[in-house]
Amino acid sequence: MEYTKPLARLIEYFQKLPSIGPKTAMRLALHIIKMSENEVQNFSNALIDAKTKIAYCQNCFNMSCSNPCEICSDPTRNKSVICVVGETKDLMAIEKTNEYHGQYHVLQGLISPIDGIGPDDIRIKELLYRINQNDIKEVILALNPSVEGEATSLYLNKLLKPFNIKITRIAFGIPIGSELEYADEITLARALEGRIEI
Amino acid sequence: MEYTKPLARLIEYFQKLPSIGPKTAMRLALHIIKMSENEVQNFSNALIDAKTKIAYCQNCFNMSCSNPCEICSDPTRNKSVICVVGETKDLMAIEKTNEYHGQYHVLQGLISPIDGIGPDDIRIKELLYRINQNDIKEVILALNPSVEGEATSLYLNKLLKPFNIKITRIAFGIPIGSELEYADEITLARALEGRIEI
Repeated sequence: MEYTKPLARLIEYFQKLPSIGPKTAMRLALHIIKMSENEVQNFSNALIDAKTKIAYCQNCFNMSCSNPCEICSDPTRNKSVICVVGETKDLMAIEKTNEYHGQYHVLQGLISPIDGIGPDDIRIKELLYRINQNDIKEVILALNPSVEGEATSLYLNKLLKPFNIKITRIAFGIPIGSELEYADEITLARALEGRIEI
Repeated sequence: MEYTKPLARLIEYFQKLPSIGPKTAMRLALHIIKMSENEVQNFSNALIDAKTKIAYCQNCFNMSCSNPCEICSDPTRNKSVICVVGETKDLMAIEKTNEYHGQYHVLQGLISPIDGIGPDDIRIKELLYRINQNDIKEVILALNPSVEGEATSLYLNKLLKPFNIKITRIAFGIPIGSELEYADEITLARALEGRIEI
């Protein structure tokens, strides 16, 4: 049997989403059919709304409905520190810590020659422009500890050196709650390398 | 920071779906925003379509756009065998085997006193009606090997006995590709109990 057409189409759309396989897609689609018509209508509207209303802040390139975004336009935030992240989801992860009260800059990608992504394909010149135009005291690099993240960090570090501002990188090391015994060698080596005086 | 509103709302809707936690919901929502507007529109339409066009077949209670459904109206399928399943997803799982060419009856639930679901809350009387009205030779019970599935199977078995038709149950036992060594005792006991002559 083939699925009845509207069901097959819905399953297909769910399956296109990241981390959704055929079985989950089917479960989600069947769940949708069991929801009330009102709820489905709301969900459908939320999709369109999110897509049409959300754009990128033209200052920090965070996703937002307003330009400048909520963070850039918040007067209580420290304007002299910029935390550079790869994607909006990294920004969100940092915001959840409630420990950072400065500005952000979302690169919208990382340098990755294998994927054909060079320095001009991500928001690096916009970052330089911001640093040029504003009184920035510190740039924090918070990029993933991957090959691409390291490459981008190195590149940015070189590029930002001439500005004579403080450039820092978040610490890579042993995650809190884990045990040294189970840490992989690279992480442990980075933890040693990044040791700080107490 | 709070998520920008349309994003927060979309994340919330994704999170209401089964097996989607907060992190996956965020990832899915961010993915939606990166999709083209056209794709999002199509996805949104697919949701509404599936919800509004799909109803239940009034013969077998399978989800379908047509009544009777594609299976009930297929002339090539054996009309004298009914396979009784709990939910549409179970029907779909059996259809995927390509081994069964009879009719189905979707109970739309299983007897579960704890959840307040009794025999009258699921499509049992409709099953009896079908058996009464048609020349049925065999009823296959393909319900989950759970407490509810077993209870429903027992109940149906008693109810169907007077009709003097063949009543069978799918085999429970060791799954193909696994090893006896790792099978739990209950499964192994059921496999022994359900042994067949070769």
